[in-house]
Amino acid sequence: MIFERIESEGLAHYSYLVGDKGEAVVIDPRRDCKIYQEMASKRGLRITDILETHRNEDYLVGSSELSDRTEAEIWHADSQLNYRYGDPVEGGQIWNVGGLKIEAIHTPGHTPGHMSYLLYDRTGEPWIVFTGDSLFAGDLGRVDLMGMDRAEEMANDMYDTLFDKLLPLGDEVIVCPAHGAGSVCGASISDRVWTTIGIERERNPKLQYSDRDEFVEGIAEKLERPPYFREMERLNLEGPPLLGDLPVPTPLSPEEFEERAREATVLDTRMELGFNSAHVPGSFSIWMDGLPNFAGWFLSYEESLLLVNETDDPTQATRLLVRIGFDDLAGYLSGGMLSWHTAGKRSSSIDTVTVHELCNGLDRGKTAWILDVRNDEEVKDAEISDAHHIHLTQLPENLDEIPSNRPIYIFCGSGLRSTVAASFLKRNGWEDIKVVLGGTAGWNSTACPIE
Amino acid sequence: MIFERIESEGLAHYSYLVGDKGEAVVIDPRRDCKIYQEMASKRGLRITDILETHRNEDYLVGSSELSDRTEAEIWHADSQLNYRYGDPVEGGQIWNVGGLKIEAIHTPGHTPGHMSYLLYDRTGEPWIVFTGDSLFAGDLGRVDLMGMDRAEEMANDMYDTLFDKLLPLGDEVIVCPAHGAGSVCGASISDRVWTTIGIERERNPKLQYSDRDEFVEGIAEKLERPPYFREMERLNLEGPPLLGDLPVPTPLSPEEFEERAREATVLDTRMELGFNSAHVPGSFSIWMDGLPNFAGWFLSYEESLLLVNETDDPTQATRLLVRIGFDDLAGYLSGGMLSWHTAGKRSSSIDTVTVHELCNGLDRGKTAWILDVRNDEEVKDAEISDAHHIHLTQLPENLDEIPSNRPIYIFCGSGLRSTVAASFLKRNGWEDIKVVLGGTAGWNSTACPIE
Amino acid sequence: MIFERIESEGLAHYSYLVGDKGEAVVIDPRRDCKIYQEMASKRGLRITDILETHRNEDYLVGSSELSDRTEAEIWHADSQLNYRYGDPVEGGQIWNVGGLKIEAIHTPGHTPGHMSYLLYDRTGEPWIVFTGDSLFAGDLGRVDLMGMDRAEEMANDMYDTLFDKLLPLGDEVIVCPAHGAGSVCGASISDRVWTTIGIERERNPKLQYSDRDEFVEGIAEKLERPPYFREMERLNLEGPPLLGDLPVPTPLSPEEFEERAREATVLDTRMELGFNSAHVPGSFSIWMDGLPNFAGWFLSYEESLLLVNETDDPTQATRLLVRIGFDDLAGYLSGGMLSWHTAGKRSSSIDTVTVHELCNGLDRGKTAWILDVRNDEEVKDAEISDAHHIHLTQLPENLDEIPSNRPIYIFCGSGLRSTVAASFLKRNGWEDIKVVLGGTAGWNSTACPIE
Amino acid sequence: MIFERIESEGLAHYSYLVGDKGEAVVIDPRRDCKIYQEMASKRGLRITDILETHRNEDYLVGSSELSDRTEAEIWHADSQLNYRYGDPVEGGQIWNVGGLKIEAIHTPGHTPGHMSYLLYDRTGEPWIVFTGDSLFAGDLGRVDLMGMDRAEEMANDMYDTLFDKLLPLGDEVIVCPAHGAGSVCGASISDRVWTTIGIERERNPKLQYSDRDEFVEGIAEKLERPPYFREMERLNLEGPPLLGDLPVPTPLSPEEFEERAREATVLDTRMELGFNSAHVPGSFSIWMDGLPNFAGWFLSYEESLLLVNETDDPTQATRLLVRIGFDDLAGYLSGGMLSWHTAGKRSSSIDTVTVHELCNGLDRGKTAWILDVRNDEEVKDAEISDAHHIHLTQLPENLDEIPSNRPIYIFCGSGLRSTVAASFLKRNGWEDIKVVLGGTAGWNSTACPIE
Repeated sequence: MIFERIESEGLAHYSYLVGDKGEAVVIDPRRDCKIYQEMASKRGLRITDILETHRNEDYLVGSSELSDRTEAEIWHADSQLNYRYGDPVEGGQIWNVGGLKIEAIHTPGHTPGHMSYLLYDRTGEPWIVFTGDSLFAGDLGRVDLMGMDRAEEMANDMYDTLFDKLLPLGDEVIVCPAHGAGSVCGASISDRVWTTIGIERERNPKLQYSDRDEFVEGIAEKLERPPYFREMERLNLEGPPLLGDLPVPTPLSPEEFEERAREATVLDTRMELGFNSAHVPGSFSIWMDGLPNFAGWFLSYEESLLLVNETDDPTQATRLLVRIGFDDLAGYLSGGMLSWHTAGKRSSSIDTVTVHELCNGLDRGKTAWILDVRNDEEVKDAEISDAHHIHLTQLPENLDEIPSNRPIYIFCGSGLRSTVAASFLKRNGWEDIKVVLGGTAGWNSTACPIE
Repeated sequence: MIFERIESEGLAHYSYLVGDKGEAVVIDPRRDCKIYQEMASKRGLRITDILETHRNEDYLVGSSELSDRTEAEIWHADSQLNYRYGDPVEGGQIWNVGGLKIEAIHTPGHTPGHMSYLLYDRTGEPWIVFTGDSLFAGDLGRVDLMGMDRAEEMANDMYDTLFDKLLPLGDEVIVCPAHGAGSVCGASISDRVWTTIGIERERNPKLQYSDRDEFVEGIAEKLERPPYFREMERLNLEGPPLLGDLPVPTPLSPEEFEERAREATVLDTRMELGFNSAHVPGSFSIWMDGLPNFAGWFLSYEESLLLVNETDDPTQATRLLVRIGFDDLAGYLSGGMLSWHTAGKRSSSIDTVTVHELCNGLDRGKTAWILDVRNDEEVKDAEISDAHHIHLTQLPENLDEIPSNRPIYIFCGSGLRSTVAASFLKRNGWEDIKVVLGGTAGWNSTACPIE
Repeated sequence: MIFERIESEGLAHYSYLVGDKGEAVVIDPRRDCKIYQEMASKRGLRITDILETHRNEDYLVGSSELSDRTEAEIWHADSQLNYRYGDPVEGGQIWNVGGLKIEAIHTPGHTPGHMSYLLYDRTGEPWIVFTGDSLFAGDLGRVDLMGMDRAEEMANDMYDTLFDKLLPLGDEVIVCPAHGAGSVCGASISDRVWTTIGIERERNPKLQYSDRDEFVEGIAEKLERPPYFREMERLNLEGPPLLGDLPVPTPLSPEEFEERAREATVLDTRMELGFNSAHVPGSFSIWMDGLPNFAGWFLSYEESLLLVNETDDPTQATRLLVRIGFDDLAGYLSGGMLSWHTAGKRSSSIDTVTVHELCNGLDRGKTAWILDVRNDEEVKDAEISDAHHIHLTQLPENLDEIPSNRPIYIFCGSGLRSTVAASFLKRNGWEDIKVVLGGTAGWNSTACPIE
Repeated sequence: MIFERIESEGLAHYSYLVGDKGEAVVIDPRRDCKIYQEMASKRGLRITDILETHRNEDYLVGSSELSDRTEAEIWHADSQLNYRYGDPVEGGQIWNVGGLKIEAIHTPGHTPGHMSYLLYDRTGEPWIVFTGDSLFAGDLGRVDLMGMDRAEEMANDMYDTLFDKLLPLGDEVIVCPAHGAGSVCGASISDRVWTTIGIERERNPKLQYSDRDEFVEGIAEKLERPPYFREMERLNLEGPPLLGDLPVPTPLSPEEFEERAREATVLDTRMELGFNSAHVPGSFSIWMDGLPNFAGWFLSYEESLLLVNETDDPTQATRLLVRIGFDDLAGYLSGGMLSWHTAGKRSSSIDTVTVHELCNGLDRGKTAWILDVRNDEEVKDAEISDAHHIHLTQLPENLDEIPSNRPIYIFCGSGLRSTVAASFLKRNGWEDIKVVLGGTAGWNSTACPIE
């Protein structure tokens, strides 16, 4: 018997490989899917079936890629949709994996045709339930994806899913969701990396409402919906383009890079200090670990991407981008910014300021305009006085709120997201920008507390 | 927050790394412990504490090795013993790991000073309990290690541990034991690789007794005790010798190998077919994956070991042997048996017979003597008629039961353990031996059923 | 500047990556070509050009695969042929790689349009010459591939190539050929893994003839031509099918394996002892490292292959087979022979005999028929009295020389090739076969010398 | 037969593994020596002997470490010295490695007892010569290490070594030195990564002098001698401390880091942009790849080191530092500068200026003081007008030449070494410093040429 959880960092996506006696299934595979095949093959397991919990919107599912490699059969939840490949799952459907049994449970709420998969142990009792985007540790899947007009209906479905189907499985049953803390699929997933029905029943805030109405009202909230979701939804229905193998972008000399940059977007994956210190003019900053969450908000599928990385190994950036469908990678800057400078190319910089400098020197009353790009919950936890709050992802639609004739001090939690914001503002014409290094975390650790 | 289970195959040993905000603890580390340090270091976690659940008897604990690498503090359970290093744990003791809390719970039964460690989640409620060798999936830690005269007392302790301390934690709490299926530390650990208090409460056969007396009677059984346990116990008290790095045994030419073999034991780690076909005369067969379970029964700590492997990479054999203290590795046969034969060295072989040949040709009534080396439970499940049962590990003490003037047909489940037995018999003078390929599994899959 | 030689074991094939200042070229890439791209990319080098020394016949060239990954331009030697992709090289053509210069030199002999590539150092002087299959360490490329009717013409071309073009480059120039010792492309390539013009001029036996006529006569010999060469030649002209990534064959249960084996060839890659001890009836033995040299002689491109390996990781076998175009891998036996036997499946075996047994017991005068499957040179070096010599690769065409009513004792150098031969004979109906373990090497190391 | 060159980047150090038929020797091993053992062991080769070409001064030799792992015998050149371990080599001494032969040749010049090792091929003729620090590609080993008073004597020895011993081996012989381009052991080693006697005879500038006198005069120059050489020499005589395994420094929180920094030197291995943008106050900048060449000039063996890296994996920095004896690594900043800032710690920065800004805005006539820290040869090739030249390594001894009341603009070739210089000046009290990004390379690529 093997049971493996495969985590895709950044997306905070969990997929699972379950195998026994020569057979295995994969639940919600990611697109760079060689890992499942290798894990299975080294143990002599043949992947026979791929089970999807729902039509995913936040990443490209690897079902067709994995099936192409292994001949495994693809089973789609949300079978009301028009898939161009694979077969529909029905509630109650059974798979036997060696001596193990898995059963599909229809668990709508996040999507109408969402499925959970219940794995029985050898005693024939419920053991582990793969809940996809229905029940997370400390949170639930969002119910606004079908539109706010259907949110109440979906919330009611979710209520039934939870109280009639999942919780009755028993407190002792282990819960294996499709996402962990940090995903865009749940507003506040906990970092309780393993959990059970009982733990969620008692401690998941969304399961503490007194009745159905309160529940529905409580969870039927509108969350942010990144523009790339639409592309993911479309491609997951069609079957994403087959990769074969992870592409390796082409290393480019500064001259070639500059040439190609005329018709491409430059994406800089370095950390905040390097980027702000010097970057290719007009480039976009999203630090490496931020790619899964923010690339889909700011980058366009219509444009080629050119990468600037800290090192000459583009593998990690490629992997993260390809998972969300950014396959058109036109190359990367060989030798990084050092080679850019030694080639005598022009670079830009953005001012940074430490919280200490800020604490001592900022005459905030006068001209500075404080921009706080943290999300709503972070702001709720600790507001910055006199700051204007626009969540990073909402910047594109709210640029007109930001004055262009005053110095902009940008705060986030640490300095990473504020650098993303700064690069976005700069591309849109702002000049007098300052990124606050350390952000609110740093601010709160010093003697200059938030007023 | 990170939580990682590190499995040591063969030993079926689980250790755990729990970390948060720059700090980490390791529970029951193994001796080849670089893996913890690397896992922690790559995430920027400092290993501050090493928690032992009990004085281990089945492998060498890596506490001193890991502490030497990391400066982590060592905390011993079974503090009634005379450790030469580290500090004693007391029940109720608390460790803070970043924002997480771990508490020691005194859970005697397997050993008198056995500790479990309870990890709380961020809500302050019990989340995961590291139960060491007290509660396993589907089994309990054995209570006969202090001697059968104390078994009843220990079983009573175990009863209190379970029903007063562990089960009350709540059905929803996740159970992380020190061993999985295949360990010598529990007679019949289930392959339910993740489990909870509730699952065990309902499905663990040892928790289904009607009252304390039945429980005590039921579990206070005498299990096999490999001779190497004594050495592990002694070294775990003293602190096993520091390795620094995993040793790499010396490749030896056939001539050098033959020369050194005069004062060493030859251990052949190949599979059953290769070994039976040809091996260095006098060598001992234990196939690679069988080393953790059987090396300690047959090999002596007084003798150097010489290895014959399938490939020229001795890493895996070395790792498995070092974990149970067989550090005196005098080298391995470079080029394997092929080089032995091309050097013109003599080899021995052992006859094999397939179940089909056996089915067709064996005149069992007349002279053949069937030896079944499976364990008691396997025999109970499916007895072989006319077979004489001596569990593999009990062979050394029961050699006189085996006739020397009749052909011996050796059965196990597959052909692996019977090859170990065959090599042992051969070293002790038996000549007319036949290993049954496929063993009872093969036998039961053919048209010649067990009578 | 980087210069890397990439060796493909078994094929004894050398390819080369040469890079400087952001650019790189690859010479004669193999089909599993990710390695070049990764080596280059990690150093920030863009592979701009792929240079072929000739139309290869002994493996599938990776030019189209690598070009598909990198956009590099493909340059074919042997431009007289009808390539369906890439561009033709002309003698004297120049490539600039960063600050380095490479020049094509027309060096016919092995093929009519064979090219060597001369790399100049920064002083502008000849430094390294990539000689493809013209000049090897200790040998020359064979001249019989165009047919024996053109062998004399080709040998004359080779003479001019050597004495007019390569040797004049200077004794100090380093020679980098496309093959090392063990290749089928040269009868007796030396294991002098690095060499120079001067070393070859003085020590290469083929360069010691007194004049052109002697040279032509000496080298225009007919060598064995494996049947797979034709397929390689065809595919290298067309461009081999794109792999995308190395395929991973499917693990199959004994039942599935048996089922699929009805329409496939079973190929067993284990060593001689395991195979002879027990194998799937009707299976073909070619030990792992023997695949590059012998698979193309015995296997058909028309049939699917099923693999039996020593371990459950099929990567190495897959890699070796795919390099010579055996892409139709229908799966492998999960769990190996152990699972075959525990599933109660029938197996076959082949008798083995050690040289000691042979020495003591064989009444050779009477009935035994000794088959020596070594190659001509080995036989010349040390003949076995009373043996009948048929080189392993010539067995298919010479089966009628082998008596079917006498015990056949098969000799090779070690026991590996004789096992291949034994499996072949067995598939063709021979029953009374014995493989001599240790072969002539073992025989010569004992007190029973070859008479 | 195997022949492997193992390169240690940064040090530009080459060591070699030569093996045949079960035996192997290593020439000039580095301290992190597991690589040799693994390479050898996987091929079934036993390392029997370790050959040193001379008492090394620029890194810690791994002979004792490797011998401790393998039982190989250590052979020291420079046997006039008082080694505390191993055995002395004598000129003419022979080692047989399988079927290969290696012979020691006394080749003084770099050191008095320097040895080269000549490997014969199977024809019995000279094939490869391991020249240590005598003959490099394009350069010779320096002769000033015994003091300038003996430089002429050593240069004369070198003359004899070259013209009487090495060159007579023959143009065709392959030369394998101990260093490649970038080493501190030769002033201008070429990047001709493989070379021969003939190539060096014709193209090595040091071999073109018309007679002995010119030669001696030409090469007996005084080169820089880093202070760490003395420590390397001492430890190589004693045998460097055994590592066992590469240490893993402890990850430290900003608080712990700050605490330990009071009694340690902070070493920042990030690239120029990150460091200049923000760094721990008082820290020392040496970018990762610069560690082998510059750590020994600026760091003290008396002080513990604390690392700030770009990522949380300290392996590479550790490896590079340990090779030159900096074993006292007190930890590294977990989470890097981001965690430093979010913890609210103060940081420093250094101004940078691009060549474009410099070109447009610098009023150099007035106050700016240009510091050029490139080496003599670079300066000779392209002088910067009005610049003051102090080679980076000479800064500590020439601080008094640098004005403290004027803005200092620091140039090197790219911006890396100028950042090292800037961090050094800053630690010594300078405040008004500007690092020129792109350095002279960038400057020369723009429209503002060097005047």
